[in-house]
Amino acid sequence: MAPRSPMIAVVGPRRDASAGELAAAEEAGAGIASAGAVLVCGGLGGVMEAACRGARSEGGTTIGLLPGTERDEANGWVVLALPTGLGEGRNALIVRAADAVVAIGGGFGTLSEIGFALKAGKRVVGLGTWSVDRRDGGDATAAGIVVAANPHEAARLALEAAAATG
Amino acid sequence: MAPRSPMIAVVGPRRDASAGELAAAEEAGAGIASAGAVLVCGGLGGVMEAACRGARSEGGTTIGLLPGTERDEANGWVVLALPTGLGEGRNALIVRAADAVVAIGGGFGTLSEIGFALKAGKRVVGLGTWSVDRRDGGDATAAGIVVAANPHEAARLALEAAAATG
Amino acid sequence: MAPRSPMIAVVGPRRDASAGELAAAEEAGAGIASAGAVLVCGGLGGVMEAACRGARSEGGTTIGLLPGTERDEANGWVVLALPTGLGEGRNALIVRAADAVVAIGGGFGTLSEIGFALKAGKRVVGLGTWSVDRRDGGDATAAGIVVAANPHEAARLALEAAAATG
Amino acid sequence: MAPRSPMIAVVGPRRDASAGELAAAEEAGAGIASAGAVLVCGGLGGVMEAACRGARSEGGTTIGLLPGTERDEANGWVVLALPTGLGEGRNALIVRAADAVVAIGGGFGTLSEIGFALKAGKRVVGLGTWSVDRRDGGDATAAGIVVAANPHEAARLALEAAAATG
Repeated sequence: MAPRSPMIAVVGPRRDASAGELAAAEEAGAGIASAGAVLVCGGLGGVMEAACRGARSEGGTTIGLLPGTERDEANGWVVLALPTGLGEGRNALIVRAADAVVAIGGGFGTLSEIGFALKAGKRVVGLGTWSVDRRDGGDATAAGIVVAANPHEAARLALEAAAATG
Repeated sequence: MAPRSPMIAVVGPRRDASAGELAAAEEAGAGIASAGAVLVCGGLGGVMEAACRGARSEGGTTIGLLPGTERDEANGWVVLALPTGLGEGRNALIVRAADAVVAIGGGFGTLSEIGFALKAGKRVVGLGTWSVDRRDGGDATAAGIVVAANPHEAARLALEAAAATG
Repeated sequence: MAPRSPMIAVVGPRRDASAGELAAAEEAGAGIASAGAVLVCGGLGGVMEAACRGARSEGGTTIGLLPGTERDEANGWVVLALPTGLGEGRNALIVRAADAVVAIGGGFGTLSEIGFALKAGKRVVGLGTWSVDRRDGGDATAAGIVVAANPHEAARLALEAAAATG
Repeated sequence: MAPRSPMIAVVGPRRDASAGELAAAEEAGAGIASAGAVLVCGGLGGVMEAACRGARSEGGTTIGLLPGTERDEANGWVVLALPTGLGEGRNALIVRAADAVVAIGGGFGTLSEIGFALKAGKRVVGLGTWSVDRRDGGDATAAGIVVAANPHEAARLALEAAAATG
């Protein structure tokens, strides 16, 4: 039989990520890989690339679910680059592949991934990402984004959730 | 040549919608149809059904992009029921099909649709839906959900945005 | 309640369709629409456009499930143009939306649609399209493409299958 | 930087595969892995499972793109199990992820994958799979399925095609 490792998604913007967000993504990726989990992401630049670089620094496996049809789209730290041809629709696949999700920074694509993950009942750990609340003052805490204090904690919380559901 | 009408999506939860949200969806659907636009939605119950019922009350065309593979999933007010077999992944299709999006109430699926729409640069008009803000206090207004005061205004704002981009 | 009409897909190549194939597609589209069914297709040129033109000549409803993200991709005879952003992956959607499939001529995309339709247990009516057989001489007739003698018969056989499953 | 290996898809039926087809799939999987390529497949039983078992016997990496949303769907020889939630629509993803495709035996899903691969211009190597021909006697050889004499040759031909396009 094949070994089966937990998979943790790191989602975040390709562009407009701050230096702090990129550093956080790299540290979170390293934490995920050092725990033996597989990193899954959208495979492009920015937060995705930083997370992959971190995971590779620990010898981890990185999967990139690419929006286009060309493997060359992937950043240089993606080990397994899978072109999907689904455009932004591939965001749903990233979430489905993952046992838990770490969201860093906040593009709109990231917001869609948070929505998918919460809908699927998967743990979302946020680092400087979207705060989502019902405008009517409804049960905001039900939104279920767990805010991490730092990248190390983000990786730990995601890994714990993956272990609980695996 | 074929006539080509604007398409407006109404997104919102199937379950847990309040009576006020359902009434708002019905009124928004009616407003969309009375302006000659096509209503596109996820085709199920709750907010989706209410919006379709409203559109049909004005003789409008309603399209339901269903998550499953069976046409019978559709609510009774969907004229064109399209099973997609994509599960929640069909949320991306609803947004892509639409020229503008009206979000009513707030399930997590709705949140994913808001993310997709904003990512695609499409106008999102909200009625008692999610408030999304960058937790870091970043440019919250960039999130671009336009809050409507009532269903009539929601339909009008969506139709204006569709006309501007059509 | 909304009226619910059968949906028949017409699939075939955008490029390299012969004059005879285009004429057949137009006649099949007219036959589908005159029976009150909705035509669903990939929304582009060639066989798709000819089928839509035929359906519109009878005042029918035509749906185009487009591969890209722009409504303007659609041919001029598509009434309801739905950009999917799924590329060739939208071929699966065309089949899922349809009660039966008419395949005319034979591009490779058409071949994928035939495979999907047969897998889903939907009737495929062929006009000068692929002949698919198990190379090992296995149960070739099980492949289940019904060969029509002419476009009129193709539309009739598809409509009968749709009525039987509807 | 991450090493980047070629990816070869093995496609074939979950049910109704003959003992000979399963043995061929296992041998092809072993050949793919022993050359250092990654095996990608639909992740379920039958031909998919046999191919994964073969690849694992050589210590290879196996990716399963699952139709459902549960990782547990995967056969026991899949190392990286990715639930897609796309149903049969995931067939397009298998093809997009691969540099070349080996088709063994012939279910209808396999036929859809052959269509997608040929449409995408990817080499399809067949072992006892579908024979596809234009019914009008058109350019049948253009269909481009290369028939292999045995699993060893199938793996070799796919790897050569992957190397040429990589």
